Amino acid sequence: MTRADARPGTATVPARPARVLGIDPGTAVTGYGVVAFDGRTATLVECGVIRTHAKEPLPARLHNIHAGIAELIARHQPDTVAVEDVFYAKNVRTTIVLGHARGVILLAAQDAGLVIHEFPPAEIKKAITGNGAATKDQMQFMVAKLLRLKSVPQPADAADGVAAALCACLSPQFAPSAAGLAMRPSSLSRLRP
Amino acid sequence: MTRADARPGTATVPARPARVLGIDPGTAVTGYGVVAFDGRTATLVECGVIRTHAKEPLPARLHNIHAGIAELIARHQPDTVAVEDVFYAKNVRTTIVLGHARGVILLAAQDAGLVIHEFPPAEIKKAITGNGAATKDQMQFMVAKLLRLKSVPQPADAADGVAAALCACLSPQFAPSAAGLAMRPSSLSRLRP
Repeated sequence: MTRADARPGTATVPARPARVLGIDPGTAVTGYGVVAFDGRTATLVECGVIRTHAKEPLPARLHNIHAGIAELIARHQPDTVAVEDVFYAKNVRTTIVLGHARGVILLAAQDAGLVIHEFPPAEIKKAITGNGAATKDQMQFMVAKLLRLKSVPQPADAADGVAAALCACLSPQFAPSAAGLAMRPSSLSRLRP
Repeated sequence: MTRADARPGTATVPARPARVLGIDPGTAVTGYGVVAFDGRTATLVECGVIRTHAKEPLPARLHNIHAGIAELIARHQPDTVAVEDVFYAKNVRTTIVLGHARGVILLAAQDAGLVIHEFPPAEIKKAITGNGAATKDQMQFMVAKLLRLKSVPQPADAADGVAAALCACLSPQFAPSAAGLAMRPSSLSRLRP
Protein backbone atom coordinates (compact mmCIF):
# COMPACT_ATOMS: atom_id res chain seq x y z
CA MET A 1 0.00 0.00 0.00
CA THR A 2 1.14 3.54 -0.66
CA ARG A 3 -0.65 5.57 1.98
CA ALA A 4 2.27 7.98 2.32
CA ASP A 5 2.29 8.61 -1.43
CA ALA A 6 -1.43 9.16 -1.60
CA ARG A 7 -1.63 11.66 1.25
CA PRO A 8 1.60 13.57 1.96
CA GLY A 9 1.54 15.15 5.39
CA THR A 10 2.90 18.56 4.40
CA ALA A 11 1.11 21.68 5.60
CA THR A 12 0.85 23.09 2.08
CA VAL A 13 -1.56 20.36 0.98
CA PRO A 14 -5.18 21.28 1.81
CA ALA A 15 -6.66 18.97 4.44
CA ARG A 16 -9.09 16.54 2.88
CA PRO A 17 -12.17 15.40 4.74
CA ALA A 18 -11.54 12.53 7.13
CA ARG A 19 -12.63 9.17 5.83
CA VAL A 20 -14.24 6.70 8.18
CA LEU A 21 -14.81 3.06 7.30
CA GLY A 22 -17.67 1.64 9.34
CA ILE A 23 -18.08 -2.13 9.62
CA ASP A 24 -20.90 -4.35 10.84
CA PRO A 25 -19.12 -7.73 11.15
CA GLY A 26 -20.82 -10.95 10.16
CA THR A 27 -19.66 -14.39 9.07
CA ALA A 28 -22.16 -14.58 6.20
CA VAL A 29 -22.64 -10.86 5.51
CA THR A 30 -20.30 -8.09 6.65
CA GLY A 31 -21.79 -4.64 6.02
CA TYR A 32 -19.59 -1.63 5.43
CA GLY A 33 -19.87 2.06 4.71
CA VAL A 34 -17.26 4.68 3.86
CA VAL A 35 -18.13 8.20 4.98
CA ALA A 36 -16.23 11.44 4.32
CA PHE A 37 -16.52 13.88 7.21
CA ASP A 38 -15.18 17.45 7.21
CA GLY A 39 -16.03 18.08 10.87
CA ARG A 40 -19.48 19.41 9.97
CA THR A 41 -20.96 17.44 7.13
CA ALA A 42 -20.84 13.71 6.52
CA THR A 43 -21.06 12.41 2.95
CA LEU A 44 -21.50 8.83 1.83
CA VAL A 45 -18.64 7.61 -0.36
CA GLU A 46 -19.59 3.95 -0.73
CA CYS A 47 -21.49 1.25 1.08
CA GLY A 48 -22.09 -2.43 0.50
CA VAL A 49 -21.58 -5.90 1.87
CA ILE A 50 -18.94 -8.63 1.79
CA ARG A 51 -20.71 -11.98 1.42
CA THR A 52 -19.26 -15.41 2.11
CA HIS A 53 -20.71 -18.79 1.25
CA ALA A 54 -22.10 -20.95 4.03
CA LYS A 55 -20.73 -24.06 2.30
CA GLU A 56 -17.15 -22.84 2.54
CA PRO A 57 -15.04 -23.85 5.56
CA LEU A 58 -14.66 -21.13 8.19
CA PRO A 59 -10.95 -20.44 7.43
CA ALA A 60 -11.78 -19.73 3.77
CA ARG A 61 -14.62 -17.41 4.80
CA LEU A 62 -12.28 -15.58 7.19
CA HIS A 63 -9.79 -15.19 4.36
CA ASN A 64 -12.46 -13.61 2.14
CA ILE A 65 -13.64 -11.22 4.88
CA HIS A 66 -10.06 -10.17 5.67
CA ALA A 67 -9.21 -9.71 1.98
CA GLY A 68 -12.41 -7.71 1.41
CA ILE A 69 -11.68 -5.31 4.28
CA ALA A 70 -8.03 -4.97 3.24
CA GLU A 71 -9.17 -4.09 -0.29
CA LEU A 72 -11.56 -1.41 1.03
CA ILE A 73 -8.80 0.08 3.18
CA ALA A 74 -6.35 0.11 0.25
CA ARG A 75 -8.88 1.71 -2.08
CA HIS A 76 -10.44 4.31 0.24
CA GLN A 77 -7.47 5.06 2.51
CA PRO A 78 -9.62 5.72 5.58
CA ASP A 79 -8.15 7.45 8.64
CA THR A 80 -10.41 5.66 11.05
CA VAL A 81 -12.26 2.37 11.25
CA ALA A 82 -15.41 1.99 13.35
CA VAL A 83 -16.31 -1.62 14.10
CA GLU A 84 -19.58 -2.70 15.65
CA ASP A 85 -19.08 -4.84 18.72
CA VAL A 86 -20.33 -8.42 18.85
CA PHE A 87 -24.00 -8.75 19.67
CA TYR A 88 -24.81 -11.63 21.98
CA ALA A 89 -26.74 -14.07 19.84
CA LYS A 90 -29.00 -16.57 21.55
CA ASN A 91 -26.87 -19.28 20.00
CA VAL A 92 -23.48 -19.05 21.73
CA ARG A 93 -21.81 -20.86 18.83
CA THR A 94 -23.01 -18.15 16.42
CA THR A 95 -21.60 -15.47 18.70
CA ILE A 96 -18.21 -17.19 18.88
CA VAL A 97 -17.99 -17.61 15.10
CA LEU A 98 -18.88 -13.93 14.75
CA GLY A 99 -15.93 -13.23 17.05
CA HIS A 100 -13.67 -14.99 14.52
CA ALA A 101 -14.89 -12.69 11.73
CA ARG A 102 -14.46 -9.62 13.90
CA GLY A 103 -10.93 -10.75 14.78
CA VAL A 104 -9.75 -10.73 11.16
CA ILE A 105 -11.47 -7.36 10.56
CA LEU A 106 -9.65 -5.77 13.51
CA LEU A 107 -6.43 -7.37 12.25
CA ALA A 108 -6.80 -5.76 8.81
CA ALA A 109 -7.40 -2.35 10.41
CA GLN A 110 -4.51 -2.76 12.85
CA ASP A 111 -2.09 -3.89 10.15
CA ALA A 112 -2.99 -0.79 8.11
CA GLY A 113 -2.14 1.40 11.11
CA LEU A 114 -5.63 2.90 11.38
CA VAL A 115 -7.33 4.43 14.41
CA ILE A 116 -9.89 1.86 15.55
CA HIS A 117 -13.13 2.67 17.34
CA GLU A 118 -15.39 -0.08 18.68
CA PHE A 119 -19.03 0.55 19.52
CA PRO A 120 -21.68 -1.71 21.03
CA PRO A 121 -24.72 -2.13 18.74
CA ALA A 122 -27.01 -0.26 21.16
CA GLU A 123 -24.62 2.72 21.24
CA ILE A 124 -24.66 2.98 17.45
CA LYS A 125 -28.45 2.73 17.35
CA LYS A 126 -28.80 5.38 20.01
CA ALA A 127 -26.35 7.75 18.30
CA ILE A 128 -28.15 7.46 14.97
CA THR A 129 -31.82 7.24 15.97
CA GLY A 130 -31.90 8.27 19.63
CA ASN A 131 -33.18 4.79 20.47
CA GLY A 132 -30.77 2.02 21.53
CA ALA A 133 -33.31 -0.60 20.46
CA ALA A 134 -34.07 0.86 17.01
CA THR A 135 -35.28 -1.50 14.28
CA LYS A 136 -33.42 -2.16 11.03
CA ASP A 137 -35.97 0.03 9.19
CA GLN A 138 -35.44 2.94 11.57
CA MET A 139 -31.68 2.64 11.16
CA GLN A 140 -31.90 2.64 7.36
CA PHE A 141 -34.28 5.61 7.45
CA MET A 142 -32.07 7.72 9.72
CA VAL A 143 -28.84 6.83 7.90
CA ALA A 144 -30.49 8.05 4.66
CA LYS A 145 -31.68 11.23 6.42
CA LEU A 146 -28.31 12.07 7.97
CA LEU A 147 -26.51 11.58 4.66
CA ARG A 148 -29.22 13.28 2.54
CA LEU A 149 -29.68 10.14 0.42
CA LYS A 150 -32.61 9.81 -1.96
CA SER A 151 -33.17 6.19 -0.97
CA VAL A 152 -32.28 4.05 2.04
CA PRO A 153 -29.03 2.04 1.84
CA GLN A 154 -29.63 -1.59 0.89
CA PRO A 155 -29.24 -4.20 2.27
CA ALA A 156 -29.76 -3.38 5.95
CA ASP A 157 -26.28 -4.71 6.78
CA ALA A 158 -24.74 -2.03 4.54
CA ALA A 159 -26.77 0.62 6.40
CA ASP A 160 -25.44 -0.81 9.67
CA GLY A 161 -21.89 -0.40 8.40
CA VAL A 162 -22.63 3.22 7.46
CA ALA A 163 -24.24 3.75 10.88
CA ALA A 164 -21.03 2.59 12.60
CA ALA A 165 -19.06 5.13 10.56
CA LEU A 166 -21.52 7.92 11.46
CA CYS A 167 -21.38 6.90 15.11
CA ALA A 168 -17.59 7.45 15.02
CA CYS A 169 -18.09 10.90 13.44
CA LEU A 170 -20.52 11.78 16.25
CA SER A 171 -18.25 10.37 18.96
CA PRO A 172 -16.48 12.78 21.35
CA GLN A 173 -13.25 10.79 20.89
CA PHE A 174 -13.29 11.36 17.14
CA ALA A 175 -10.18 13.32 16.18
CA PRO A 176 -8.81 12.36 12.77
CA SER A 177 -5.34 13.79 13.18
CA ALA A 178 -4.41 12.87 9.62
CA ALA A 179 -6.91 15.37 8.25
CA GLY A 180 -6.17 17.98 10.91
CA LEU A 181 -9.77 18.05 12.06
CA ALA A 182 -11.17 18.37 15.53
CA MET A 183 -14.73 17.53 16.44
CA ARG A 184 -16.70 20.61 17.41
CA PRO A 185 -19.87 20.55 19.47
CA SER A 186 -21.71 22.14 16.56
CA SER A 187 -20.94 19.12 14.42
CA LEU A 188 -23.42 17.08 16.37
CA SER A 189 -26.26 19.38 15.38
CA ARG A 190 -24.96 19.91 11.86
CA LEU A 191 -25.07 16.20 11.20
CA ARG A 192 -28.73 16.13 12.10
CA PRO A 193 -30.87 16.58 9.00
CA MET B 1 7.80 -17.00 2.26
CA THR B 2 9.72 -19.43 0.13
CA ARG B 3 7.91 -22.69 0.64
CA ALA B 4 8.61 -23.82 -2.91
CA ASP B 5 12.32 -23.16 -2.51
CA ALA B 6 12.53 -24.95 0.80
CA ARG B 7 10.74 -28.09 -0.31
CA PRO B 8 10.83 -28.79 -4.04
CA GLY B 9 8.09 -31.20 -5.03
CA THR B 10 10.16 -33.42 -7.31
CA ALA B 11 9.96 -37.19 -6.94
CA THR B 12 13.71 -37.53 -6.54
CA VAL B 13 13.68 -35.78 -3.18
CA PRO B 14 13.12 -38.25 -0.32
CA ALA B 15 9.83 -37.67 1.51
CA ARG B 16 10.43 -35.93 4.80
CA PRO B 17 8.27 -36.58 7.85
CA ALA B 18 5.06 -34.58 7.88
CA ARG B 19 5.16 -31.56 10.15
CA VAL B 20 2.13 -30.65 12.18
CA LEU B 21 1.74 -27.33 13.96
CA GLY B 22 -0.67 -27.69 16.88
CA ILE B 23 -2.19 -24.57 18.44
CA ASP B 24 -4.10 -23.92 21.66
CA PRO B 25 -5.52 -20.43 21.02
CA GLY B 26 -5.66 -17.83 23.76
CA THR B 27 -5.81 -14.05 23.87
CA ALA B 28 -3.17 -13.81 26.62
CA VAL B 29 -1.26 -17.05 25.96
CA THR B 30 -1.39 -19.09 22.76
CA GLY B 31 0.35 -22.44 23.14
CA TYR B 32 1.93 -24.18 20.18
CA GLY B 33 3.84 -27.31 19.35
CA VAL B 34 5.52 -28.49 16.15
CA VAL B 35 5.64 -32.27 15.73
CA ALA B 36 7.35 -34.29 12.98
CA PHE B 37 5.46 -37.48 12.16
CA ASP B 38 6.64 -40.19 9.77
CA GLY B 39 3.41 -42.19 9.95
CA ARG B 40 4.70 -44.24 12.89
CA THR B 41 6.72 -42.11 15.22
CA ALA B 42 6.06 -38.55 16.35
CA THR B 43 8.97 -36.33 17.38
CA LEU B 44 8.82 -32.96 19.05
CA VAL B 45 10.48 -30.22 16.99
CA GLU B 46 9.60 -27.17 19.09
CA CYS B 47 6.99 -26.00 21.52
CA GLY B 48 6.30 -22.76 23.33
CA VAL B 49 3.84 -19.94 23.78
CA ILE B 50 2.99 -16.59 22.19
CA ARG B 51 2.22 -14.12 24.95
CA THR B 52 0.41 -10.79 24.59
CA HIS B 53 0.09 -8.02 27.12
CA ALA B 54 -3.25 -7.44 28.82
CA LYS B 55 -2.67 -3.68 28.71
CA GLU B 56 -2.49 -3.63 24.92
CA PRO B 57 -5.67 -3.00 22.92
CA LEU B 58 -7.25 -6.11 21.40
CA PRO B 59 -6.31 -5.24 17.77
CA ALA B 60 -2.61 -4.98 18.74
CA ARG B 61 -2.81 -8.32 20.55
CA LEU B 62 -4.45 -9.92 17.51
CA HIS B 63 -1.65 -8.54 15.35
CA ASN B 64 0.96 -10.14 17.62
CA ILE B 65 -0.80 -13.51 17.67
CA HIS B 66 -1.19 -13.49 13.88
CA ALA B 67 2.43 -12.45 13.34
CA GLY B 68 3.64 -15.12 15.78
CA ILE B 69 1.75 -17.90 14.01
CA ALA B 70 2.85 -16.65 10.57
CA GLU B 71 6.47 -16.69 11.77
CA LEU B 72 6.13 -20.29 13.03
CA ILE B 73 4.61 -21.37 9.71
CA ALA B 74 7.38 -19.65 7.72
CA ARG B 75 10.11 -21.18 9.87
CA HIS B 76 8.79 -24.74 10.25
CA GLN B 77 6.91 -25.14 6.95
CA PRO B 78 4.23 -27.42 8.43
CA ASP B 79 1.94 -29.42 6.15
CA THR B 80 -0.94 -29.36 8.58
CA VAL B 81 -2.23 -27.12 11.33
CA ALA B 82 -4.33 -28.50 14.19
CA VAL B 83 -6.26 -25.84 16.10
CA GLU B 84 -8.07 -26.48 19.34
CA ASP B 85 -11.69 -25.38 19.22
CA VAL B 86 -13.00 -22.67 21.51
CA PHE B 87 -13.90 -23.87 24.97
CA TYR B 88 -17.02 -22.32 26.40
CA ALA B 89 -15.83 -20.13 29.24
CA LYS B 90 -18.27 -19.20 31.98
CA ASN B 91 -17.74 -15.59 30.99
CA VAL B 92 -19.29 -15.21 27.52
CA ARG B 93 -17.16 -12.13 26.87
CA THR B 94 -13.99 -14.17 27.40
CA THR B 95 -15.22 -16.80 24.97
CA ILE B 96 -15.99 -14.18 22.30
CA VAL B 97 -12.57 -12.54 22.66
CA LEU B 98 -11.00 -15.99 22.36
CA GLY B 99 -12.94 -16.35 19.10
CA HIS B 100 -11.16 -13.23 17.81
CA ALA B 101 -7.75 -14.80 18.55
CA ARG B 102 -8.76 -18.06 16.93
CA GLY B 103 -9.96 -16.16 13.87
CA VAL B 104 -6.55 -14.62 13.15
CA ILE B 105 -4.86 -18.00 13.77
CA LEU B 106 -7.10 -19.73 11.22
CA LEU B 107 -6.46 -16.83 8.83
CA ALA B 108 -2.67 -17.30 9.06
CA ALA B 109 -3.04 -21.04 8.35
CA GLN B 110 -5.48 -20.48 5.49
CA ASP B 111 -3.32 -17.80 3.87
CA ALA B 112 -0.35 -20.20 3.97
CA GLY B 113 -2.43 -22.81 2.13
CA LEU B 114 -2.18 -25.40 4.90
CA VAL B 115 -4.51 -28.29 5.69
CA ILE B 116 -6.45 -27.23 8.79
CA HIS B 117 -7.87 -29.61 11.38
CA GLU B 118 -10.05 -28.35 14.22
CA PHE B 119 -10.63 -30.39 17.37
CA PRO B 120 -12.80 -29.75 20.43
CA PRO B 121 -10.77 -29.68 23.67
CA ALA B 122 -12.42 -32.88 24.96
CA GLU B 123 -11.50 -34.76 21.75
CA ILE B 124 -7.85 -33.78 22.13
CA LYS B 125 -7.82 -34.80 25.79
CA LYS B 126 -9.46 -38.13 24.99
CA ALA B 127 -7.05 -38.84 22.11
CA ILE B 128 -4.01 -38.15 24.29
CA THR B 129 -5.01 -39.52 27.69
CA GLY B 130 -8.11 -41.61 27.04
CA ASN B 131 -10.08 -39.22 29.23
CA GLY B 132 -12.00 -36.30 27.73
CA ALA B 133 -11.87 -34.47 31.08
CA ALA B 134 -8.13 -34.92 31.74
CA THR B 135 -6.35 -32.37 33.92
CA LYS B 136 -3.52 -30.13 32.73
CA ASP B 137 -1.04 -32.34 34.65
CA GLN B 138 -2.31 -35.50 32.95
CA MET B 139 -2.03 -33.85 29.56
CA GLN B 140 1.55 -32.70 30.19
CA PHE B 141 2.48 -36.17 31.48
CA MET B 142 1.05 -38.02 28.47
CA VAL B 143 2.46 -35.57 25.93
CA ALA B 144 5.90 -36.18 27.45
CA LYS B 145 5.34 -39.96 27.37
CA LEU B 146 4.14 -40.07 23.75
CA LEU B 147 7.10 -37.98 22.59
CA ARG B 148 9.66 -39.72 24.83
CA LEU B 149 10.61 -36.42 26.51
CA LYS B 150 12.74 -36.33 29.63
CA SER B 151 10.59 -33.64 31.20
CA VAL B 152 7.04 -32.40 30.70
CA PRO B 153 6.54 -29.46 28.30
CA GLN B 154 6.20 -26.13 30.10
CA PRO B 155 4.04 -24.13 30.42
CA ALA B 156 0.86 -26.21 30.25
CA ASP B 157 -0.39 -24.13 27.28
CA ALA B 158 2.62 -25.28 25.24
CA ALA B 159 1.77 -28.90 26.10
CA ASP B 160 -1.80 -28.22 24.94
CA GLY B 161 -0.47 -26.98 21.61
CA VAL B 162 1.64 -30.15 21.25
CA ALA B 163 -1.39 -32.24 22.22
CA ALA B 164 -3.42 -30.67 19.38
CA ALA B 165 -0.65 -31.63 16.94
CA LEU B 166 -0.55 -35.21 18.28
CA CYS B 167 -4.34 -35.42 18.06
CA ALA B 168 -4.07 -34.61 14.33
CA CYS B 169 -1.42 -37.33 13.89
CA LEU B 170 -3.76 -39.83 15.57
CA SER B 171 -6.79 -38.67 13.59
CA PRO B 172 -8.24 -40.97 10.88
CA GLN B 173 -8.48 -37.96 8.53
CA PHE B 174 -4.75 -37.30 8.81
CA ALA B 175 -3.17 -37.64 5.37
CA PRO B 176 -0.31 -35.22 4.79
CA SER B 177 -0.18 -35.39 1.02
CA ALA B 178 2.89 -33.17 0.89
CA ALA B 179 4.99 -35.83 2.57
CA GLY B 180 3.34 -38.70 0.72
CA LEU B 181 2.27 -40.36 3.95
CA ALA B 182 -0.91 -42.19 4.78
CA MET B 183 -2.00 -42.97 8.31
CA ARG B 184 -1.90 -46.67 9.02
CA PRO B 185 -3.84 -48.39 11.78
CA SER B 186 -0.57 -49.51 13.35
CA SER B 187 0.42 -45.88 13.84
CA LEU B 188 -2.09 -45.55 16.61
CA SER B 189 -0.42 -48.23 18.66
CA ARG B 190 3.10 -47.16 17.69
CA LEU B 191 2.46 -43.70 19.04
CA ARG B 192 1.58 -45.14 22.41
CA PRO B 193 4.67 -45.27 24.67
